[in-house]
Amino acid sequence: MIQPLAVSMGDPAGIGPEIIAKAWSHRTARALPPFFAVGDARAVRAVWDGPVREIREPAETAAVFDEGLPVLGVADGGEIVPGTPDVDGARCALHALELAQGLVRSGAAGALVTGPVSKAQLYQIGFNYPGQTEFVAERCGIAGENAVMMLAGPDLRVVPITTHVPMIEVAGLLTIELVAAKGRATARGLTRNFGILNPRIAFAGFNPHAGESGKIGREEIDILVPAIEQLRAEGIDATGPFAADTMFHGRARATYDAALCCYHDQALIPIKTLHFDEGVNITLGLPIVRTSPDHGTAFGIAGRNVAEPGAMIAAIAMAAAAATRRAISAL
Amino acid sequence: MIQPLAVSMGDPAGIGPEIIAKAWSHRTARALPPFFAVGDARAVRAVWDGPVREIREPAETAAVFDEGLPVLGVADGGEIVPGTPDVDGARCALHALELAQGLVRSGAAGALVTGPVSKAQLYQIGFNYPGQTEFVAERCGIAGENAVMMLAGPDLRVVPITTHVPMIEVAGLLTIELVAAKGRATARGLTRNFGILNPRIAFAGFNPHAGESGKIGREEIDILVPAIEQLRAEGIDATGPFAADTMFHGRARATYDAALCCYHDQALIPIKTLHFDEGVNITLGLPIVRTSPDHGTAFGIAGRNVAEPGAMIAAIAMAAAAATRRAISAL
Repeated sequence: MIQPLAVSMGDPAGIGPEIIAKAWSHRTARALPPFFAVGDARAVRAVWDGPVREIREPAETAAVFDEGLPVLGVADGGEIVPGTPDVDGARCALHALELAQGLVRSGAAGALVTGPVSKAQLYQIGFNYPGQTEFVAERCGIAGENAVMMLAGPDLRVVPITTHVPMIEVAGLLTIELVAAKGRATARGLTRNFGILNPRIAFAGFNPHAGESGKIGREEIDILVPAIEQLRAEGIDATGPFAADTMFHGRARATYDAALCCYHDQALIPIKTLHFDEGVNITLGLPIVRTSPDHGTAFGIAGRNVAEPGAMIAAIAMAAAAATRRAISAL
Repeated sequence: MIQPLAVSMGDPAGIGPEIIAKAWSHRTARALPPFFAVGDARAVRAVWDGPVREIREPAETAAVFDEGLPVLGVADGGEIVPGTPDVDGARCALHALELAQGLVRSGAAGALVTGPVSKAQLYQIGFNYPGQTEFVAERCGIAGENAVMMLAGPDLRVVPITTHVPMIEVAGLLTIELVAAKGRATARGLTRNFGILNPRIAFAGFNPHAGESGKIGREEIDILVPAIEQLRAEGIDATGPFAADTMFHGRARATYDAALCCYHDQALIPIKTLHFDEGVNITLGLPIVRTSPDHGTAFGIAGRNVAEPGAMIAAIAMAAAAATRRAISAL
């Protein structure tokens, strides 16, 4: 039995509080293990009329989980207006993230699930990380570049090798070392978090048709092939580079456990085309389990009771499964 | 009533002959109008035991279409071994393409559907076009760059603004003029071929998150936005640029008639993820209707009777529908 999961609420004016509360409502149908929200309980009450149980420590979660959504409070988030973010809300979101990750690292909570934050608001209060992933990685003592972002849905897992950089910079960032490191971390992460003993890692080519033997670009020959050969020499089942456009239909997806993609859209287009409402972001390479729903704060629909909790439910379920696997393999 | 459709067989050693014959077998169930194959009848007989009717001119098609697959012969394709292409086969494929497009341009056939060819073999006999699209465009007196490749499936239509070029060259090729020209041709093509009176054209951003207001790249600000504004000033319902990763799920697809994408994989990944076995390539901007199944010769499975005819059937049906619309609007 793992410890209860810590779910940071994200921005109190976004859809985080609502989808966490809705996930709690689905706890029985979706067989979710006990979890508690970390944030300002008023943010939940502002958008949801279900039962809330304020707790003082994670250990109280199990006793109250069937009665209401357990909420571990952090400093008051100022005036909370769903859909209207401000710096008080950003401070509340940051404190919730800080507390939640700390509780997981200390062992009081079993895994970390993070709600969506507003980076624009966080930057105004001095937050200077590209995102929550890098923040959590640093708290765990891991360099940001070694924390690997994987997007996972029911039928597809993808890892972007480069992320939020201009397209004209991508080719210059791709190196044999980076590609091999991402492949290695992905293989290890699939074993640790998903219980896949010999993960199959498929690499997408960078150019159209994976470069057609150098006729449409050389990154495949110069970077991807040597990186794949290096991984194979280490015993990792790495294949490719394949033409990216024919890698993501059903029969192709059945041939690998994760697709490694050269840039953001190459990875994110197929996963969001297939799994828009249920995509989970799981960070590989950390000593703790961390997932999040693969969507933003959606301020535009906050407070209207129309937010879909599917991705949050999937993020909680995936975190619980990964934490359970790690607990068993550590025995 | 349109004239019978001309379907060029493509490489006789590829799956073209087989999928054309299979499409004929589905003619009643799929309500296909009369069509005839153009190529070497022996290529069909080598892979299919159904009835073949050799004809001497398109006008004979209607009379024999219920009895067997009409085939208008071209010069003998040498020894035909399914799965083993050679230059004789390439010559046969080229002559079939030449004859088929000519019959459509003359009005003897109602639309052109092209089977898959081997570019590698064609290049050996002096063919010097990037593909069949540019060849047909030139025969029609249209500059290759004004012939627009659209990939269309049941739920999505995409147009790549650049195609088979190395990724590092894409940013340099994107210009306001090119983007606007592709948007204009797409809008016109949707009206002419699909009967959409006021087509909605959505542009994908080039960079992750469509550049986030310039923070992750400037092509959106410098090129895409001015091109979209120009199109809007001309009365075209052009929108974007949108973050490409969130453009292709079901709810997003419902908001536009075609997505204009900056590069090959941005367009081809979503269409092939969704419609791998039924994608159709339709060339916009030509005086004739031309479609083809969105797949290659598949030499590896030729002659084994396992090729899926879905895309060929969809290509024939789409060509017939487009030719019928054009015929009506010309009345």
